[in-house]
Amino acid sequence: MSQKLNAALLGASGYTGADLMRLGVRHPNIDFTVLTANTHAGKPVEEVFPHLGGVDLPQLQRADDINWSELDVVFCGLPHATSQQIVSEIVKSTDRPKIVDMSADFRLRDPAQYKAWYGNDHVDPQLQDIAAYGLTEHNRDAIRSKRIIACPGCYPTATLIALLPLAKASLINVEALIIDAKSGVTGAGRGLKQNTLAAEAGESLSPYAVGAHRHTAELEQEIGAVSGKEIKVNFTPHLIPMSRGELITAHLELESGKSVNDLRAVLESNYQDEPFVRVLSEGKMPSTGMVRGSNTCVINVFEDRIPGRAIVIAALDNLVKGSAGQALQNFNVAFGIEETTGLSQIPMFP
Amino acid sequence: MSQKLNAALLGASGYTGADLMRLGVRHPNIDFTVLTANTHAGKPVEEVFPHLGGVDLPQLQRADDINWSELDVVFCGLPHATSQQIVSEIVKSTDRPKIVDMSADFRLRDPAQYKAWYGNDHVDPQLQDIAAYGLTEHNRDAIRSKRIIACPGCYPTATLIALLPLAKASLINVEALIIDAKSGVTGAGRGLKQNTLAAEAGESLSPYAVGAHRHTAELEQEIGAVSGKEIKVNFTPHLIPMSRGELITAHLELESGKSVNDLRAVLESNYQDEPFVRVLSEGKMPSTGMVRGSNTCVINVFEDRIPGRAIVIAALDNLVKGSAGQALQNFNVAFGIEETTGLSQIPMFP
Amino acid sequence: MSQKLNAALLGASGYTGADLMRLGVRHPNIDFTVLTANTHAGKPVEEVFPHLGGVDLPQLQRADDINWSELDVVFCGLPHATSQQIVSEIVKSTDRPKIVDMSADFRLRDPAQYKAWYGNDHVDPQLQDIAAYGLTEHNRDAIRSKRIIACPGCYPTATLIALLPLAKASLINVEALIIDAKSGVTGAGRGLKQNTLAAEAGESLSPYAVGAHRHTAELEQEIGAVSGKEIKVNFTPHLIPMSRGELITAHLELESGKSVNDLRAVLESNYQDEPFVRVLSEGKMPSTGMVRGSNTCVINVFEDRIPGRAIVIAALDNLVKGSAGQALQNFNVAFGIEETTGLSQIPMFP
Amino acid sequence: MSQKLNAALLGASGYTGADLMRLGVRHPNIDFTVLTANTHAGKPVEEVFPHLGGVDLPQLQRADDINWSELDVVFCGLPHATSQQIVSEIVKSTDRPKIVDMSADFRLRDPAQYKAWYGNDHVDPQLQDIAAYGLTEHNRDAIRSKRIIACPGCYPTATLIALLPLAKASLINVEALIIDAKSGVTGAGRGLKQNTLAAEAGESLSPYAVGAHRHTAELEQEIGAVSGKEIKVNFTPHLIPMSRGELITAHLELESGKSVNDLRAVLESNYQDEPFVRVLSEGKMPSTGMVRGSNTCVINVFEDRIPGRAIVIAALDNLVKGSAGQALQNFNVAFGIEETTGLSQIPMFP
Repeated sequence: MSQKLNAALLGASGYTGADLMRLGVRHPNIDFTVLTANTHAGKPVEEVFPHLGGVDLPQLQRADDINWSELDVVFCGLPHATSQQIVSEIVKSTDRPKIVDMSADFRLRDPAQYKAWYGNDHVDPQLQDIAAYGLTEHNRDAIRSKRIIACPGCYPTATLIALLPLAKASLINVEALIIDAKSGVTGAGRGLKQNTLAAEAGESLSPYAVGAHRHTAELEQEIGAVSGKEIKVNFTPHLIPMSRGELITAHLELESGKSVNDLRAVLESNYQDEPFVRVLSEGKMPSTGMVRGSNTCVINVFEDRIPGRAIVIAALDNLVKGSAGQALQNFNVAFGIEETTGLSQIPMFP
Repeated sequence: MSQKLNAALLGASGYTGADLMRLGVRHPNIDFTVLTANTHAGKPVEEVFPHLGGVDLPQLQRADDINWSELDVVFCGLPHATSQQIVSEIVKSTDRPKIVDMSADFRLRDPAQYKAWYGNDHVDPQLQDIAAYGLTEHNRDAIRSKRIIACPGCYPTATLIALLPLAKASLINVEALIIDAKSGVTGAGRGLKQNTLAAEAGESLSPYAVGAHRHTAELEQEIGAVSGKEIKVNFTPHLIPMSRGELITAHLELESGKSVNDLRAVLESNYQDEPFVRVLSEGKMPSTGMVRGSNTCVINVFEDRIPGRAIVIAALDNLVKGSAGQALQNFNVAFGIEETTGLSQIPMFP
Repeated sequence: MSQKLNAALLGASGYTGADLMRLGVRHPNIDFTVLTANTHAGKPVEEVFPHLGGVDLPQLQRADDINWSELDVVFCGLPHATSQQIVSEIVKSTDRPKIVDMSADFRLRDPAQYKAWYGNDHVDPQLQDIAAYGLTEHNRDAIRSKRIIACPGCYPTATLIALLPLAKASLINVEALIIDAKSGVTGAGRGLKQNTLAAEAGESLSPYAVGAHRHTAELEQEIGAVSGKEIKVNFTPHLIPMSRGELITAHLELESGKSVNDLRAVLESNYQDEPFVRVLSEGKMPSTGMVRGSNTCVINVFEDRIPGRAIVIAALDNLVKGSAGQALQNFNVAFGIEETTGLSQIPMFP
Repeated sequence: MSQKLNAALLGASGYTGADLMRLGVRHPNIDFTVLTANTHAGKPVEEVFPHLGGVDLPQLQRADDINWSELDVVFCGLPHATSQQIVSEIVKSTDRPKIVDMSADFRLRDPAQYKAWYGNDHVDPQLQDIAAYGLTEHNRDAIRSKRIIACPGCYPTATLIALLPLAKASLINVEALIIDAKSGVTGAGRGLKQNTLAAEAGESLSPYAVGAHRHTAELEQEIGAVSGKEIKVNFTPHLIPMSRGELITAHLELESGKSVNDLRAVLESNYQDEPFVRVLSEGKMPSTGMVRGSNTCVINVFEDRIPGRAIVIAALDNLVKGSAGQALQNFNVAFGIEETTGLSQIPMFP
């Protein structure tokens, strides 16, 4: 495809918005015609993101007076609850743009679950009928056919890429999943909070939202779905003193008679043709430094000293494969564009 | 006690040596009369540690020509295998100094285990008869009476402080311990390695020695001992882009009928009078920033979403409570000095 | 002196307040009876600074209902403009407490200069008559005799320690001072700002307030005073991706016939008996890592390739010698306590 | 141009080598047929740079048995002194490949200067006749016509882009240049050194090579050349606790009657059509975070409080515009390829 599609980015002043612009302006099929950031409306992007100075992008505007029907795709980087309002409005007003949503608003199919985890009633729960859960490698058909693509959370992306094939193949006990997760500070967003000040987050390491992180709901939904069970997952995130990058360490109970080799075989066969998932060779350690700035997710499987158990580790860049990169990958799938288009950046190390 | 005791520090050019000097020169009962660092013999300490310039300390010397019988205590910050040779020599030559060893050489009581994990035969396995495992809060009697005090590894210190009381009280299944551990780069020592260069360790997060870290042996020995079982432990360490600090996240299976409240109660009663262990109030997150530079270990207990499980998290400064600070605490115990002497530094934040 | 003095700390929720508590609670002559933090009144200190959990400190309270006459000393860590209001009130209500102010409100003797740099009229300019500029090493007499001690800014502390002796000895051209300064992010305080978020300040380096930083006024006042000239100074600060530490690189024009050796000789003779200033031996590089957590300022002098010029570099911990540590040092001087009391912490490295 | 050119990279195991691969493998006209790294010969690139796993690159080999005449271009990322030997050998054996050298070996035209700064006699000084100093924006003709392109050092790239136009226009006193420079740790290379360990370089800031850094020679040569004077420059570098990025703060004496506005005007007119140099609008601060991972250099000019002076600040990514990126830009120029080819990466922030 050589055609340019009209794209809007809603919420251009956040970190995922920034990375979507970084990647999207070099995508041959994307023409950003609308960028919104309500409190910064009227400013050039450079005012909120100096690193984008000199890049050809439209001024920031309010979301109020967009003509949705002139757009082919709307990337939505708004906070949850806000996202659903505007998507509902778009869908009511026109059939044209597809919506690639990076918020949490369309990830949970059950409105009760949504309310339980996010606190508010969903304004338009029937939109779920036209929404796909955008874990690209596992849901391409829905991503192609649905109007709304709900990109998974950053943690669920890493975790589900690592565990869904194992759950589908009944290799692991999905009722005993322990996901010890670690993320850089961009995962906390650009909002002003004391615990993400450089003086506080730097040189320190702390767990947060233990047993209560909202991404748990996605894990339980998706792994529950493939295994046919209602499950509860131990998901324990930690804030790491670095900017980007996310790594999950999954401590797993093997199903009887299954081995680390079985896990490796299933992961390798699942992902051998995937451009953005790499199962490392035996003994190699995944690290966030290996994937910084790229759309790649790396995985490996390790023996546990405790018999009958295994450890699976996955790493990705939370702003790319964990958010803006996967959004573009889903955009490519949705519009029939070669899937790697615009996403071939090699990781930046050091 | 107001008397000054003659102290030697062997291995003064490493990070644990540096922190032992930082704390020890302000200890009212310690007079460092000997500091060794073989490759730097003849230099002032300032040459290897500029931050110690201006501090009143003797020149660095070789370990060869020390008159051991003039010393009251020998702090040993040498690498494993080297440590045992010199300790064996000291013990043969004189009855005088007690030895506070920060290496791994006297931590494992079973020589076969030592060899299995460290690769070499122990040169003097019968020294175990006069050695105490120096986890201060749990072994004061032995620390008082034995000649050699084998300070635990940094990870085992945090892990055992958190789990020993729970294992003793039979609250947790010790055959299913999952210890997801995280450490700053000082834990890797001062040796020159590519993966601890600032450009490589900075802004990246990586697991290492998965299923194979030597500290596992201490955990299995000590928790095995109190529970009367031969156990295997999942111990999974990660390298964190910060200098100091260590945090362990223990994912635990509760014994039947036991609850998070039981765990909290046992930890609180065990540690209520301990000056260096703090069980945080419900919901408060331990972090390494809370304990930086101090001898404190903080702990808390959390509900796991999976029924019948709990999460216990502990944090300490690996160079202080995890090494030099605990060494001084053990020195205090061994010589009948008030246990907090020289160790009352408040954590440095930010 | 073995007596305990009643101390208040106003503004206990900021970083300088935190470090004053860290150091002050171990000072044998300080008893913190009042801690204020208006928005956190009623909370234990631990709520705003978890690292101070377990430390014996009173609850935070509002500044409104303090009985000033029961206090011996008031440490003031409030923002500028607020500080002057409360100090004016204290002075009017009682003769008792001395005030050690860490804000900028009493540093500038000329109210017009104060207004020019800080924007507001000073509420009580005649308080200058009872205020000393608290650069300890250069102003002990005034610090002893005055009611208010205005601790210098962090940058001026480093710069003036390095340059005042050189200016007094007429070794350098004070009309051509170029001070290229660098500070960690704690220098920016605990307020919530986008540019000090870990994701933005980390892994980046940026100048700020070029030609316009308020600390310039102190430099011009103090160096102007000793040289009898009205001067303008190039002061160019940079934000460094680290928590604590400050380093100034002074590019100096030598007076005719003067040499680097003359500068070294004057600095050495000025500071040879000072406990907290260390002139390094020739060729040794000052670094912030050498002084982290301590009250020490390190200095050195270097040849410039350009004939007739020299480079002087000084480093200190902005929260200690640059703020809370110097405040305690001034407190010691003011109350006739041995000057190093409570300030003998050795730098923490790494 | 759509043709692929055969490229070798010598020294593929260093950081500049890594970034040349990162950028070069996505360059449409480059086909890496040879990668050398003597101590790692026989290994896949992934073994020395895990982030390049999955990228289509040849195995590492020794430099001994390369058939130079099959190559169109040789990128040389070897240490100085080594570089000149191999380039001399290439030039003697074949006319074919152009050489884009990222070492220091062909930067200094005067062999005496080379020896004075680098310590060894140059093995083949007459190669200077066929070498261009590869500061792209200022030397395109020579870069097009010469066989060897000597890419400038990272610091000189930033400094010369900022100052050459000002020196050419006689706006500044070139005999009074004060360049206060700051670099992340990748500038120190991948060699194992204690001061670049994460525990030592992290959370600390230190000047180094004050008055003695080798890049000074390039500054004196190039600025001297355009001004027709033999000059000495104050060049004072500092090591910053971050991975990539470099910023220079130039403290300048204006020629009589010249102003900051004159400087701005000259910089703007010089660079208005340059794709990789951006003069920021008035008051905007250059920062390394603005250019991370990109080939852009940002500059701005500021008033100095001292009359008759100005401050010019420039920032770039030392591994891109300061090394591998500029090498590719020079390659483009040398081979008549559109100059921005392969270099359009947008900076990565945060």
